[in-house]
Amino acid sequence: MRTGNAIIGTAGGPTVVINQSVLGVIQQIERSMHIVHVFGARRGVEGIVREDYFDLMRQPRNMLDLVAQTPAAALGSTRIKPDQEYCQRVLEAFRRRDVRYFFYIGGNDSANTARIISRVAREAKYEMRTIHIPKTIDNDLLVSDHTPGYGSCAKFVGSAFIGDNLDNRSLPGVKINLLMGRNAGFITAASILARFREDDGPHLVYVPERTFDLEQFVTDVGNVYRRYGRCLVAVSEGIHDGQGTLWAEKVSVLRQEHLERDAFGNLQLGVGTGSLADFLAGTLRNRFKDISRVRADTLGYLQRSYPASVSVVDAWEARLCGQMAVSYSVDAEMDGSVALLRLPGSRYAVGTKLVDLKEVAPDHPPFTKVLPDKYISPEGNNVTNNYREYVRPLIAELPRIGWFEQIADMARFSVHE
Amino acid sequence: MRTGNAIIGTAGGPTVVINQSVLGVIQQIERSMHIVHVFGARRGVEGIVREDYFDLMRQPRNMLDLVAQTPAAALGSTRIKPDQEYCQRVLEAFRRRDVRYFFYIGGNDSANTARIISRVAREAKYEMRTIHIPKTIDNDLLVSDHTPGYGSCAKFVGSAFIGDNLDNRSLPGVKINLLMGRNAGFITAASILARFREDDGPHLVYVPERTFDLEQFVTDVGNVYRRYGRCLVAVSEGIHDGQGTLWAEKVSVLRQEHLERDAFGNLQLGVGTGSLADFLAGTLRNRFKDISRVRADTLGYLQRSYPASVSVVDAWEARLCGQMAVSYSVDAEMDGSVALLRLPGSRYAVGTKLVDLKEVAPDHPPFTKVLPDKYISPEGNNVTNNYREYVRPLIAELPRIGWFEQIADMARFSVHE
Repeated sequence: MRTGNAIIGTAGGPTVVINQSVLGVIQQIERSMHIVHVFGARRGVEGIVREDYFDLMRQPRNMLDLVAQTPAAALGSTRIKPDQEYCQRVLEAFRRRDVRYFFYIGGNDSANTARIISRVAREAKYEMRTIHIPKTIDNDLLVSDHTPGYGSCAKFVGSAFIGDNLDNRSLPGVKINLLMGRNAGFITAASILARFREDDGPHLVYVPERTFDLEQFVTDVGNVYRRYGRCLVAVSEGIHDGQGTLWAEKVSVLRQEHLERDAFGNLQLGVGTGSLADFLAGTLRNRFKDISRVRADTLGYLQRSYPASVSVVDAWEARLCGQMAVSYSVDAEMDGSVALLRLPGSRYAVGTKLVDLKEVAPDHPPFTKVLPDKYISPEGNNVTNNYREYVRPLIAELPRIGWFEQIADMARFSVHE
Repeated sequence: MRTGNAIIGTAGGPTVVINQSVLGVIQQIERSMHIVHVFGARRGVEGIVREDYFDLMRQPRNMLDLVAQTPAAALGSTRIKPDQEYCQRVLEAFRRRDVRYFFYIGGNDSANTARIISRVAREAKYEMRTIHIPKTIDNDLLVSDHTPGYGSCAKFVGSAFIGDNLDNRSLPGVKINLLMGRNAGFITAASILARFREDDGPHLVYVPERTFDLEQFVTDVGNVYRRYGRCLVAVSEGIHDGQGTLWAEKVSVLRQEHLERDAFGNLQLGVGTGSLADFLAGTLRNRFKDISRVRADTLGYLQRSYPASVSVVDAWEARLCGQMAVSYSVDAEMDGSVALLRLPGSRYAVGTKLVDLKEVAPDHPPFTKVLPDKYISPEGNNVTNNYREYVRPLIAELPRIGWFEQIADMARFSVHE
């Protein structure tokens, strides 16, 4: 490949390991003969068209490893989804700076951006390599076995449910946790990492891959509560009704209608992220007057940003994807996306390959991956325990837990009887 | 002291280190000559009156250390606040089993329970020792410098804000996080652990020790946003208006009034934990049409149950309090509550002492501790950075973070210009 400069950019919702991929790229470029200089675009494509760059070769040496361990996008991120015309401006910026290598770290939308830039450059006969590096907590990218960012998110969710299941055991009641994932149930499915004993929660898991029926939900919770005297539920934000309308949307519309009737001056009833979980809890409270404790939490942004329990496997794989992106950019004869593959065998091991951008950002649906049927219970209200085999290696360490054993024989305690 | 049996119980909202205190008690009892057997009451005083016990001397040996590391109350917890008559039943249960040592782990309410039991036993001339062991994430117990459970909660909150501050830097906007703490701002104050640079969030911190004025809040957020192009806010669930009415209550009443006008059959609008944060975000959205991203999260139960980032200092101190409780029960001539004291000197060190139960559960207000004035900014909209000196030693490790430096000189990048 032609000698020139390189640009790295990051886009979409951050993860806790996205900076590992940035550092992987920097490290590998330092070993490369073809790349003169590497710059970081501030806030993805926005930084490129605005020519707002970090000089990644002049960063304090001792800072780089710290940046890699730091959550969120140190280069800043963007929600812009560039069209053909926007990508023309990106290409002009590349031309001005002799950029011959472009590494774009992101999810499905970023793969699509990379694909457009790749085409625009080819049509302009501008010699360059565009490589997409996978990143998303949603784990919904096509081709890859899993996506950097997901392992740490799954570890956070699994850990959160370990704690919450025990909390719910301490003070029994019904607890609902709402999790991220509009279209795919992978994040919600990770909640089952908290199940060790037969009666551990989550006892019910609702993913967007199945229709969410409110009546069935009430029945399910009632059944679990009668059996265990408590119930822990994992619900994806992407649950929808039989017509495909999001429940979050339905609740929001109801609230909005109320809001329009609002006559409280300054005081506005917000329609927010907590609404869906609160709605579900409210429904259960109305239906089960005998259950004294019904609580709901929406785990929120911590799922993608909590820094204190990153998966070392996820961190390592994110670094690897960055490194391999540079190797492919120099050695391979094509633009593409780095895919993570699980190697066959009894022990967990991964490899990478470079796949065509149109495999990750295709022209026709499916555009993203969803939770396979084999991991969803026939009733559609749970994720099966064999999902654990898929997700467990991505987590590295989970908190270990212990619990007292109930010992029936209390004879020695009857001192005076 | 008289030889006899011992009972341990736990009450109130669990923490991630409550089981450390249980194990501290068990360990120290094993070294004691006066205590024959130790039993765990399932769900605090409820287990005592129901005679539902764990035999804590017959637990699998290798399980005990695991239990200590496990969040939530392994003995189960209770929300019951016993009166004199209930405590009489507790005493009868003690009598039947020759219980001469009672260790009750909990917050202010549990100290009060211990005080009633202590009095009831004394009046009945039943020779026994009742020792309260402190535990609460709220950090609001009188006398103690801080309370076991708070350090890990503060570490969770600080870590969460480190991640969220960087996330907000990656994709700028306004972000509100709602934190636990009805009467005391200690949990909310811990958010400032995320501030390293001048422009790090939380930029605004609202605690229950000050009146929350909605107009002032809107003005504050606007000022920060104009300055930094983003704003991260920590808000305590206990904020109230000038009349002392909780904002959570006000929002709930408004929602409830809407709810009564509801004509949607099965669909009920829940009034839940997410409402206050959503309301604040909604208010800002309505007032700042130019701010595209306004988000809110309610951190919820994870503050007391997240198992994967426990403070080792907090865990050690919780264990210490359990051990010292047993020592005091045998050596001291009084019932009491174990208090944690910070020893003078430049390095952090703690000691314990046994204080009279009425010092921790007094007859007259103040019943609990609140955030001292010196840690709250004069405007009442922030916690000062010197709070960091108080809270930092309780955390042990915080995630270390790194960030790229902006390097202005881009000369080397101008290859073709």
